[in-house]
This record gives sequence, structure tokens and C-alpha cells, in this order.
Amino acid sequence: MKLWQKDYPLNQKIETFTVGKDRELDLYLAEFDVLGSLAHTQMLQTIGLLTKDELEDLQKELKNIYKDIQNGNFAIESGVEDVHSQVELLLTRKLGETGKKIHSGRSRNDQVLVDLKLFMRNRLQRVVKETLQLFHLLLELSDRHKDILLPGYTHLQIAMPSSFGLWFGAYAESLLDDMQLLQAAYKITNKNPLGSGAGYGSSFPLNRTLTTQLLGFESMHYNVVYAQMSRGKTEQTVCTALASVASTLARMAMDICLYNSQNFGFLTLPDELTTGSSIMPHKKNPDVAELLRGRTNRLKVLPQEFNLLLTNLPSGYHRDLQLTKEIMMPAFEELLSCLEITHFMLAHIQVKQNILQDEKYAYLFSVERVNELVLQGIPFREAYQQVGKEIASGSYKSSTDIHHTHEGSIGNLYNKQIKTEMERVIANFNFQAYESAISRLVE
Amino acid sequence: MKLWQKDYPLNQKIETFTVGKDRELDLYLAEFDVLGSLAHTQMLQTIGLLTKDELEDLQKELKNIYKDIQNGNFAIESGVEDVHSQVELLLTRKLGETGKKIHSGRSRNDQVLVDLKLFMRNRLQRVVKETLQLFHLLLELSDRHKDILLPGYTHLQIAMPSSFGLWFGAYAESLLDDMQLLQAAYKITNKNPLGSGAGYGSSFPLNRTLTTQLLGFESMHYNVVYAQMSRGKTEQTVCTALASVASTLARMAMDICLYNSQNFGFLTLPDELTTGSSIMPHKKNPDVAELLRGRTNRLKVLPQEFNLLLTNLPSGYHRDLQLTKEIMMPAFEELLSCLEITHFMLAHIQVKQNILQDEKYAYLFSVERVNELVLQGIPFREAYQQVGKEIASGSYKSSTDIHHTHEGSIGNLYNKQIKTEMERVIANFNFQAYESAISRLVE
Amino acid sequence: MKLWQKDYPLNQKIETFTVGKDRELDLYLAEFDVLGSLAHTQMLQTIGLLTKDELEDLQKELKNIYKDIQNGNFAIESGVEDVHSQVELLLTRKLGETGKKIHSGRSRNDQVLVDLKLFMRNRLQRVVKETLQLFHLLLELSDRHKDILLPGYTHLQIAMPSSFGLWFGAYAESLLDDMQLLQAAYKITNKNPLGSGAGYGSSFPLNRTLTTQLLGFESMHYNVVYAQMSRGKTEQTVCTALASVASTLARMAMDICLYNSQNFGFLTLPDELTTGSSIMPHKKNPDVAELLRGRTNRLKVLPQEFNLLLTNLPSGYHRDLQLTKEIMMPAFEELLSCLEITHFMLAHIQVKQNILQDEKYAYLFSVERVNELVLQGIPFREAYQQVGKEIASGSYKSSTDIHHTHEGSIGNLYNKQIKTEMERVIANFNFQAYESAISRLVE
Amino acid sequence: MKLWQKDYPLNQKIETFTVGKDRELDLYLAEFDVLGSLAHTQMLQTIGLLTKDELEDLQKELKNIYKDIQNGNFAIESGVEDVHSQVELLLTRKLGETGKKIHSGRSRNDQVLVDLKLFMRNRLQRVVKETLQLFHLLLELSDRHKDILLPGYTHLQIAMPSSFGLWFGAYAESLLDDMQLLQAAYKITNKNPLGSGAGYGSSFPLNRTLTTQLLGFESMHYNVVYAQMSRGKTEQTVCTALASVASTLARMAMDICLYNSQNFGFLTLPDELTTGSSIMPHKKNPDVAELLRGRTNRLKVLPQEFNLLLTNLPSGYHRDLQLTKEIMMPAFEELLSCLEITHFMLAHIQVKQNILQDEKYAYLFSVERVNELVLQGIPFREAYQQVGKEIASGSYKSSTDIHHTHEGSIGNLYNKQIKTEMERVIANFNFQAYESAISRLVE
Repeated sequence: MKLWQKDYPLNQKIETFTVGKDRELDLYLAEFDVLGSLAHTQMLQTIGLLTKDELEDLQKELKNIYKDIQNGNFAIESGVEDVHSQVELLLTRKLGETGKKIHSGRSRNDQVLVDLKLFMRNRLQRVVKETLQLFHLLLELSDRHKDILLPGYTHLQIAMPSSFGLWFGAYAESLLDDMQLLQAAYKITNKNPLGSGAGYGSSFPLNRTLTTQLLGFESMHYNVVYAQMSRGKTEQTVCTALASVASTLARMAMDICLYNSQNFGFLTLPDELTTGSSIMPHKKNPDVAELLRGRTNRLKVLPQEFNLLLTNLPSGYHRDLQLTKEIMMPAFEELLSCLEITHFMLAHIQVKQNILQDEKYAYLFSVERVNELVLQGIPFREAYQQVGKEIASGSYKSSTDIHHTHEGSIGNLYNKQIKTEMERVIANFNFQAYESAISRLVE
Repeated sequence: MKLWQKDYPLNQKIETFTVGKDRELDLYLAEFDVLGSLAHTQMLQTIGLLTKDELEDLQKELKNIYKDIQNGNFAIESGVEDVHSQVELLLTRKLGETGKKIHSGRSRNDQVLVDLKLFMRNRLQRVVKETLQLFHLLLELSDRHKDILLPGYTHLQIAMPSSFGLWFGAYAESLLDDMQLLQAAYKITNKNPLGSGAGYGSSFPLNRTLTTQLLGFESMHYNVVYAQMSRGKTEQTVCTALASVASTLARMAMDICLYNSQNFGFLTLPDELTTGSSIMPHKKNPDVAELLRGRTNRLKVLPQEFNLLLTNLPSGYHRDLQLTKEIMMPAFEELLSCLEITHFMLAHIQVKQNILQDEKYAYLFSVERVNELVLQGIPFREAYQQVGKEIASGSYKSSTDIHHTHEGSIGNLYNKQIKTEMERVIANFNFQAYESAISRLVE
Repeated sequence: MKLWQKDYPLNQKIETFTVGKDRELDLYLAEFDVLGSLAHTQMLQTIGLLTKDELEDLQKELKNIYKDIQNGNFAIESGVEDVHSQVELLLTRKLGETGKKIHSGRSRNDQVLVDLKLFMRNRLQRVVKETLQLFHLLLELSDRHKDILLPGYTHLQIAMPSSFGLWFGAYAESLLDDMQLLQAAYKITNKNPLGSGAGYGSSFPLNRTLTTQLLGFESMHYNVVYAQMSRGKTEQTVCTALASVASTLARMAMDICLYNSQNFGFLTLPDELTTGSSIMPHKKNPDVAELLRGRTNRLKVLPQEFNLLLTNLPSGYHRDLQLTKEIMMPAFEELLSCLEITHFMLAHIQVKQNILQDEKYAYLFSVERVNELVLQGIPFREAYQQVGKEIASGSYKSSTDIHHTHEGSIGNLYNKQIKTEMERVIANFNFQAYESAISRLVE
Repeated sequence: MKLWQKDYPLNQKIETFTVGKDRELDLYLAEFDVLGSLAHTQMLQTIGLLTKDELEDLQKELKNIYKDIQNGNFAIESGVEDVHSQVELLLTRKLGETGKKIHSGRSRNDQVLVDLKLFMRNRLQRVVKETLQLFHLLLELSDRHKDILLPGYTHLQIAMPSSFGLWFGAYAESLLDDMQLLQAAYKITNKNPLGSGAGYGSSFPLNRTLTTQLLGFESMHYNVVYAQMSRGKTEQTVCTALASVASTLARMAMDICLYNSQNFGFLTLPDELTTGSSIMPHKKNPDVAELLRGRTNRLKVLPQEFNLLLTNLPSGYHRDLQLTKEIMMPAFEELLSCLEITHFMLAHIQVKQNILQDEKYAYLFSVERVNELVLQGIPFREAYQQVGKEIASGSYKSSTDIHHTHEGSIGNLYNKQIKTEMERVIANFNFQAYESAISRLVE
């Protein structure tokens, strides 16, 4: 059954090729499709396209379907093309002609657009929540290990003293910047495309302002041609934000793989988080960190994948856009899984003490020595030359005292300020606004 | 002359390879390098690393250099490695030992970081300004041509009526979404990295809060390890935002190329904006739109180019990061040039009237016919089937009246609301805050 | 059960995360894993690590497993980590201690390397075969429709006469160039990594030359460190070649979508290959061509995805490399599906006659007019100016005769030569060499 | 002056935007443009479009221009659009009307196509030559240092013994695989597009077989529509091959950066190849290896950049394709520069002796111990378990003897076979064929 059923049959090969993964992916959209219909039908009644009785029947059945979906009792039946057809079929079985009326004033185009918007809004919220948990764990680890020193590297050369406080905290602050991109993606997502029809609007006197409110959108994609054009563009922006979070995880995973090597030995994973080798009995491999690195690195290609799909498509819907679902939907699942495993791994990671006692790290303190001379009144360039000569001649001796006091330094991490900034950004999402609208819609 | 000069000379081949395009690109940073030094020296005096007299001398000379740069009287001399060395050299020539002191409490790493931040903040503001101008032109064209109808396409098949009002307005609204990404990039950019040294902070009692205020940054990259890690990450985010604007331009350019084809004939460019063929005397080619499309499409690869540069680099500075300048700096120039030419082209573009009178567009109105039947009380699905049969049997007749009244439709473009939303986003940039700080710094 | 089983259990969360899609994808490798073991065990016997009797038993059981796999009677049992463990488990059940010996002189690393090489070699052959079939169909269509003229476009502007003979033939010749990349990928693939162990070889006196012959490889990856480094590099090269074929399909699909638009109307698909709209009863959409375009365009990102996975990984195996399977294996399936549907669609496509009679195509012949004047002795530049003036003044008149006689032109397509070149390239693959080796191995 | 000059002037803004970097890049094409004209005019005379005297005059002047270009005495004059116009202008100054005739039977499209093919063929030969030199150096280093052992890593964990012989040799063999891609690119490049006009051929009775021979092409792009379609496709394939070489260099550069870190300490660069820090007097940074890594990693994005330019362009020339020059031409320069600096750096690199004496590398030999037990008759799995227990209990003792004898192992590098394979691939390029054709053309 198809919403556009004609007299002649579609060739079977073509059907298989064109349906693709739709039936499978549409299951994730079912919940949101019903939400869209709950709002759309309320609106249709206000403009006279449904009677009050029809609306009441439809709302009741739609809420039943919603509950079935929530309880896992929903499937797309064999022979039914997609989730929209399945919902209409269920309604028509119960309500006859009335069921068919939910498609008035809509096209499949704006129906799937609104489903995708609602799906992405929901999943972005989850990503924000998981990212925030990881952020808090990182700050906690930063505070806990703030006195354990690490060598800091530049050019992979031993450079200056660093600390686990700085190292953990840096990744927390990286997530703060990622959150800005998540917020931009959220704001672009949180706009109502419903009413744009097939991209050219409708001759019905739709009330798009009403559905915008009912679905808890902050605003709408006004121009109907643009509403359609947002397909792909929104998904790409969302995946760009996911890729930003993924970049932070990937970079941390690279550090962990390196620091877990015997040649660094700064971090270890407990045995039950490592894997062995089929030929080397001594191996305890950090596969989890490597796969975290690999998976998050792969996520970074997604914005480019959208470019390939979208580049040089003239305006107006093209079926190519169906494929945006296949890229965007698994991306959420993958990132959420990576966020969870990162949290789990970090919660178990073990940091090494007394790393800097190894004599190869002696030169770490050469800048401290330069600065000491500067504070004695020697111009910086000369102090630098003098310590250089001490090192070359072997007369260099380092003190291992560290007195870094400025904002964000080893001795003064400023984690509290980082946390405050994060809270400020999070408040801007205003998730409550949409949550309460959705609650009203389904209660 | 190098800030890190040693006793042995650097091999010439290596020097050429490592300096790369630095001397050329650093010219664009000169202005911002001086701003950084103006703020840094003020701060050094407050913590006792400069006397009041030294500060006064340095400020005076730095302001002179700033004016020279503004007037185009600044060059990196032969044998001088980069802009930082050149500025220090100029100061030392005038002020002797005092000149050497400006590097106290800084590394080249945080010095170039702050230069890049100030450069990007400045250029983002220009991009925002040019994008806004184009936005206003598009809305103006949308209003002016709102009654000229166009065929709307889905699947590149004739679908439903559209209009130039919708078409121009859609690209305006697309820029509104792009502006969200520009804003996220701006917020990430507008944070002070100064004081992070080589990525591990300083043993001097720096006052980073003061330099943050002096340079008009909204906040700072607190954690010094993260401040360093923001190198590359900031540039990538900025280029992602530029690519988003570029995508909008590219898509419009594709439409223009297509609509300018004789097979569509919706738009024409005046002769003096077209080029000819070396063998076909009849040709008037829209090269400007094609090159706009090509150039903006190329810009879309930049975020990926950063991925290749940054992926799997452990934390801490690596010289690879020098190359971020070569990617990011020309990207601004290229996008600004594309924005300008788009504005120019659109200001001269000619739209065709009466397009829909061609009989091949008759089916455009089939949905209007379906909706008419629905308003007469026939369920949508049945109305759809009936019109389908009329078309198949040849009895279909369309009315060409259009009564689209809802938000964002042909008859009700909602351009004013789109404009209001844009104003709201623009206000959030709060450019004045930094502009007045910079004014204070150089006056 | 794991090849590297230790005393402590792997954490469940970690296990799920690290196993990923291995069990699912490994099913496709089972056949090739057994081939590898058939060759490896033969070699082990020649160097004294298996007795003749042990070898006989192992060969018999491995061939049984091979048949089971061919007949679909093979599964990776619950609790078994991967295909290698499953095969060893089956052997051990039947043969006890002897079963355990097949892993001597091998690591999982070179075992999976050889499995992947054998898999890719097999699938590349299929891709070559399907591409060749499409090539022949395109040439056949080119010959069949060689007299049906088309407008040729440059800059999407009507330019000069073209033909369906040229259009179909162009895509055939494009596949000829793609075949060069498939061949380069094949040659890189067709090298034996077995014996490289975990990337550092083995202290057993392995005979790698023997396994190279037994498995029908053209050569081997000699250096064991490079053999390991080829992981990812081979898959990337293979996907680059697949992407090249995909590019040809994508470009043709774009042409079809455009030419199928009412504004061009050069091509149509039969009804049963088109889909309808849920709101526009007149629509017959070429979804199949659009999804072909979208899917093949997506494939073009894969080489970049490998870049993200591989960039800046130091030499030596990393678990990230497990993910190459998830990228490469579905890519074959996707491209093969696209090749098949392209063949099917082209076999049903309908071309329009008499397109050039439409008066908008009159200027197509302006170059013919210029050349006519040149043949009368007027220098080209002057003839060009004269025809330009005729067009501007409205006095231009075109003859619609076409006499293109040179190699590859409308009147002389040179399809036979294109076919001959393809045959020459195909012969170079020398698939028989490996097919007969494999036959000997399993008989 | 433009080849397509019309009566009305092109707007200045548009001219600047559309000419772009053409005048600058075209200088690199001048030599090849003249070669194309030398062949084209010879052919024109055989089909009666030039008299023998005209041909003689043109050949003489073209050869003069060729010499001027070789001697650096060629420039594109102000006001002249491109190299083709400049050459025609020079000829017309000397020969009057005759000069104008060289454009007969050509379009700028096939003229630039043939220029680009000749340019890429030339530069590919250079890349092959430089790659081969590096290959030989790597094999030489492998042979020289074959007895110096290194720890081999998997998962960045200490795994098994390796050697500098293996490490250097691995990168040599990697270049062997890259050479296959260079060859595929070369074969696609080495085909003649001349005679395809603007992509639809010519009504003149051109002899494309003759120009194919004169220019030393192996074959031609037969179908004229495909000849045009090869624009972009050829450049992309060429850049894919360059990216493959770049990948090998990038990976080696990453190893060098890591091995040069004090935490590994396997390799050092002499002082004059390292740079210092502006604040840390002890630093000797391997900037050259880092920039090599960064630059080669950037090159890997180029194939994707072509995707963005080419995706969904319908067949036929578009001005976007002008931009392929801006991507492809600097790519050659960049890779050649990277190949040269890699050669230089490796020629000076210093390897460390006795690395494995550090006790942290003791477990490297655990597999040797397992294999020893296996050779004593213990099944592999049991031997593996036993050594695992020895390690856990602290009773493990390793012998540090290495007896790897098989093909490509520490003790038997097989460098000679790798060299032989390379020679076989190189012979297939058959550069002499084209070199002698070009010599005949210009002598």
C-alpha cells in the first residue's frame, strides 16, 4: 500500500531498489509521525477540514497508536511502503473514511520533514545530556588528579610540566565549545516545516502558527520553498555538530592509546577492559580506546557525505534526499554509544603517579629556570640564551617546583568557571519548552 | 632573525620548506599581532614585568607600528622569519633592551593563537555584514517579484505553482540558518587564548582576565592545554560556517545556471555579464554563475581538509598546525569575493514574465483541483484518484487561479518575519563590545 | 571463545563495543578463511609443523566446512568471537588437538589480512563482470540510436548537435577509464600477506612462496611490516576504484533526471519504472534514477572515510583497522546493486525522436555555418564574426545537415575501437590464474 | 583580447571574477599549448585547411615561441585573456592572417584539454622519477641498517622484534603499490582529446589519429562527448594517485615524529635539520617531519575537492571546470617538494643502536618463546597459555636471539625482489614513446 498508489504496478526490482532501508528506519520515526498527525489534525479542525467528532476520533486513535509505539507494539506490515502509510492504514481500519482525511493539507514531503525534525530534536537532547555527563566526569577527574604532574609535549618533544588536572580539564572545555555547535544545530532543527506541502505550500488556509505551537517548535521555516530546501541542510548541520563532539572524543582516545603505551606509561586500563593477542601472551591491548578513536574518526566524514548527496541538486525535492535518513539516523546511535563507552572507560582509567621522577623529563623545567632569571631582572631573550648554554654545556640544573597561578594553569584550573559557562549554554537550549508542548499533545 | 635563534644555522632547504607561506600570510596578521602586544604589555606592567616608563615607550611605538600597518607601510624584512620577529625587531631598533621584553610571559604559540583569533573575529564580522547585505537584497527581490509565477519542480518534474517571491525569499531564509553557524563559530572564536604559553601556561603571575577585557574577548579559553588544542579546532569551525554560507550560494548558482538554460528560460543575465564561445557565435554563457557555483562548492571541502590535518594528532602543539593559516585565511577572501559577486549578479538579473502560459505547465494546477474537490467534501484520497483519472483520460482542465494564504506561501511570503528573526540573531553577535575595546586599545 | 582467551573475563560493555559488527560481517569472510587455512596447513606440513596424517585430516574437514559454507550451512555460534575462532572450534570438535594446530605460524592479523584480500579479489571480479555487461549494453544502445540527434550543451546553453549515439557511447568509454582503476586496485589486492604474522613475521621457517602459489596470488607483500601496513591501504584503493565506477553512474543518472524533465523531454522511463506523488495525481517520478544518483554519489565519500580512519596512525596494527570491513564490505554490495539497476533501467529506457525540430534548437548549427565559410576560404576568426553578426541581426539561417566524419564524431562513433581497448584491459586481469588455483585447493 | 571577443564589453567585476588565476596558471601550460598547436597545424595542412607555405611559417614561429618559453622569455601580456590568445597574438603579429588560422577545427575546450593532458603527463613522469629515487634510498637504508633491531608495536603496545631493515623497506614497498595508481593515472592521462572541439566534434574532416601519433599519446579519447567528460575526471584520478604517494610519506612522517620523541628515541635528526622554541631553550624540534606530515595529509583531500566540483554537473562543459587547474597544478608542485624534502631528510637521519637493551622491551620475545615450545611438540594454544602463565607469575625469561628466515622477514628482507617488481612496473610506463614523439615535434 502506497500513498500514491496508481493502477499499474511498480516493477519489483525498482520497488526493492527505491524502498531501500525505509521500512527499517521508519520505525524510529513512528513516534514522531504520530505527534505530527496529532498536531496537524487539531489544526485541520480549526480550519473546517475536520469536524469536531472526526477530530475526537482521530485524536483518540492516534494516542492509542502512540502508546503502542511506546510499548513496542508497532510494526510496518508487509506490503506497506512506509510509516505514514501504516499509520493511515491503522486509522482507516478503525475509523473508515475519517482515517483518510489526515493527509488533507499535507504532502509526504512535509510530513517526513516534520518527522525528521522531531526525531533530531529528540536525539540532540539525548546527545546534549550524555555529553554533559561526560563533561562533569572529566571535570571531576581533573579536580581529583590536579596534583599529579605529567610531562607536557610540543612537537611530541618533552616541553614543560603539565598535569592530569589540565589534561582531563582540557577535554571538558573542548566539549564546551562543541556544545555551541550542538546549539546552533538545535536551533536550526527546532523550526516547523509542516504546511510546506511538497515545497510549494497549499491552497488550504492552513494555520502553521498553530502547529508550530502545538509541536513546541521555537519558530517555523516560513518560506515553503526554503522549508523543503532545509531537507538535507538540517541533517548536515546536525551531523556537523555530532562530528564536533566526535572530534573531541577521537583526540582524547588518541592520547589514551599513546599514554597507555609502555613508552609513555601515564595511563592504564584495568585488565577486564583490555583484550589479548592470539600469538603474544603478554599483551593487554586498549582495543576499546582504539575502536573509540576509529568510530569517532569515521563520524567526522558525515558532513562531507551530505555534501556529496546535496551538491548541485537544483531546488525542489529529489528522491536522493531519502538517503539523508540512512546517514543521520545511525550517526546518533553511534555517537551515543561512543559517549557512553567513553564515560565508562574514563570512570575506570588509572593514572600513574610520580611520572616526572624519570630523568628524561629533567628539561621540562627549563622555562621555569628562564623565568626565574627574568624575575631577577635579566631580559627574556638573554635569559633564554643563558639557559640554552647551560643545557649545551651540561651545567643545567632544574628545580622541580611549580608555581603556576594564573587563570587556567596547573595551580589554578578554573574548572568552576568552565562549569558555569557550560550551564549558561545549556540553559539556552530551553528543552522544557518543547517537552511540555509534547506532553500536552499526547496526554 | 628568529625568536628561537641558536648557534648553528638551520639548513637552507629545511628553512625554505618549513617557512612555507608564513611570511606572505603573516602580513595579514600584523595588525592583530600589534593589538595582542598592546594588551600583553599593559598587563605585564600591572604584574611588575615592565616599568611604567617601559610600558609608555612600548605603547607609543606599538601604536606607531599599528598606524604604519594601517597605512600599508609595513613589511617583513628579508631574513626575518615571521611577523612576531619583525615587530620585535622594530621595537628593539627604537627602544633597545625594552623591545626584547614584550615576549616575557608569552610563547610564539599563544601569540599566534591570539593573532588568529583576532583575525578571524574581524573577518567573521565582514562575512556577517556581506551576508546580511545579500539577505536584504534577496528579500527585496522577493517582494518586488512576488506576483511573477514560476513552475515548482519535484524530482525535476513539473509539480506545482511557485513564484519568484518564493524563490528569492527561500535563499534569504537559507542565509538565516547559515547565520546560526556563523554565530556559533563567532562565539568559539571570541575567546582569549593569551597566557596559555606553549600550551602549559606560565610561571609568571599573568593576569589573563585583564588581557581578555583589553582585547574585547567575551570570555577566555581557560584551561591552557585546551587553549592550545583550540588551534585548528577554531579554524575548522569557522570554515564550517563559511562552508554553510557557500552552500547556499552554490545551490542558488545551480538554479541560476539551470533557469538560464534555453530549456527553462526563467532568468537571464544582461549581455555584459555573460561571456562568449571561441567557436559558437551565438553563445552568451553565464560563466559568472558557474564560477560562483564552482568556487563555493570548493569551499565546502575545507572542513574536511582540517580533519586530515588534525586527525590523530596527540594533544600539544605540532608544527602541522602552521598550515591552518593556509587553509583558513584564503577561505575568507574567497567567500567574501563570492558574496560580493552574488550581490552584483542578483542586482542585475532579469526575470521572465508569463512563464506559466506555456502549455507544458498545465498540470501544475492538479493539486489545486484536488483540493477544490476536497473543499466540496470529497475525502482527499478519493479526490486524488478522481483527478488522476481525469488526467489519464485527457478530461483534466486546470484553473490557473492561485489562492495560497498561509504563512510562507505564494500569497503570504512572511518576509517581514524572516527579517525580524535575522535581526534577532544579528543582535546576538554584539560586535560593538569588541569594537569599542579595540578602539580604546589603539587610540 | 576467543583465540586470545585469558583467565579474567572481558567486561560485557567493552565486549559489545569492541566486537561491533564483526560476527555479522565475518560470515562473508568464512569461505575465504577456509581457503586460507587450506593453503596454510599444506605449507605447515612441508616445514614439519604438521604430520602427513594431520594434514590429511585437516584438509578433509576444512573442505567439509567449505562445502557447508557454500550451501549456507555455516553460522558463528553464540559466544564465539569471530570466524577464525568458529572454524578452529569446528575442527577441534572433530579432530581434537590437531584442530588447534592450524594457528601455528599465523597471527589473527595475517589471517584476517588474507581473508580480506581473497574477499576483495573475488568481489572485484564480480564488479568487473557487471561493469563489462553495462559497458556492452551502452555500446549497443549507442549503435542502435546513433542517428537520433540531441542538442549538445555547454554551460547548459544550447551549443552544437549531439546524438544518442554519442551520449550512450560516452558513458561506455567512461567505464573504460574506470576499468584502469579497477585493475590497479586488483593488482594491489592480488598479493599475499600470509606469513606476516602480527606484522613482524615469524620465527618458523614458513614458505610464503608456496602459499602465494596455492592461493593463486600474483605476488606477495614481501616485507612483513608493509604487509600489515597494506591493511586499510588496500581497502582504500579498492574503494577508490569502486567510487570511480560510481562516479560514471552518478553522472549518467544526473543526465537522465534532467533529460526526463518536461523541460528537456529527451528520455522517458516506462510507467512501471516510475513512482507517483501523494498529492499530485499527474506525477511520474524517476525515483530510480534519483536514488541511483544519490547512492552512487554517497559511495564517492568512501576513500575519504578511510583517510579519517588511517591518517596519522603510526605503523603497526591498531584495532581501528577492524572498521575497514564495515566500510569496504557494504560498498561492494551497494555498487553491485547500482550496476544491476542501471543495466535494468537502461534496458527499458525510451529515447525521443525528432528533438531538434523544436525551433529553440536552431542555433545549434551556427558552428556548421562558420565552418562552411571557412571551407570557402574565409579565416576562422572572420567567419566567426560574420555569423555572430548574422545572429544578432536576425539574418542567420541554419542548415541542419550534419557531416561529422572524424574519429569519435556523430557520424563515426568508433565504438568498435572502444570495445577493442576494453578487451585489452580485461585480458590483463588474468582472472583464470587465480580461479584455477582456488579450484585445485578445494577439489 | 579574447578568442570570443564580442561588440559589447564584459563588465570589469565579472571579468576579474571569471579570469581568476588563469593568467598565472596558464604560464605553466604555455609550453604544452605550443606543442598542441605544432601537431594541430601539421594535421590541418594534410586536410587542406593550411597550405604548405602557411604550415612552414607557422611551424617556424611556433618553434620560436617554444624556445622562448623554454628560455623563460614568454609572458601573457596585459589585456590578453589566456595563453591561447597570447600565442595566437604572437603568431598574428608575425604572420598576419595566417596566424588566425591555427584555431580552425579546434575549440578552446579541446585546446585546453590537450594542454592539460600534456602537462599532467609531463609532471607524472617527474613524480615517478622522484618517487623512484626515494624508493631506492629507502631500500639502501633498509639494507644498510638491516641488523639494527627495533621494537615492533601493535596497538602501540610493545609486541615483537622488528628492525630498521623492515621499517625502511616497508615504506619502499608501499611506494611500489602507489606506483600502480600512478600508472593507472598515467594511462588515463595519456589519451588524446584533440579534435573533440567543444565536446561535440567538428564538421571538418579532422585526422585525430595523426595528432595522436604526433603528440605521442598511447591512444585517444575516442567519443568526443567523453573526451570532454574526461575533464575533471582525469585530474581527479591523477590527484588520487598523488594522494596515494602522499599517504605513504605522511605515514612515515608520523613514525619519524613519534620515534624522534624522547619517549621512543629511535631516530634523530641532525641539529641543522631541527628548529628551536621561542621559550624553551632545550628544544630541537623535528618541524620538517611535522610539516611533511601536514602537507602530505592535506594533499589527501584533493580527490574529494574534485568530487565537490564535479558532482551532479550534467554532461557537457561548464565553466566550473576551469577550477580543476587551481587544484591539480599546485598539487604536483607540492608533492614534488615533499618528495624532495623526504629524500633529503632520510639521507641525513640517524638511527639509534642497541635499542632493545632497555628492559621494557623484554616481552618482545614472548612469541619466540611460544614458538620454541611449539617446535618441541607442544600444540600452539597450549604453548601460548604456558608462556602467558610464566609472564603472569614473573618466571618468564626471554632469549633475545632472532632467527627469522622466511620471505620478507627480519633475516631475509627480500629487498631485491621488491626492486625487481618496481622495475617491471616502471617499464610499463614506456615514457620513451612519448619523449621521442615530442622531440620530433620541436626539433
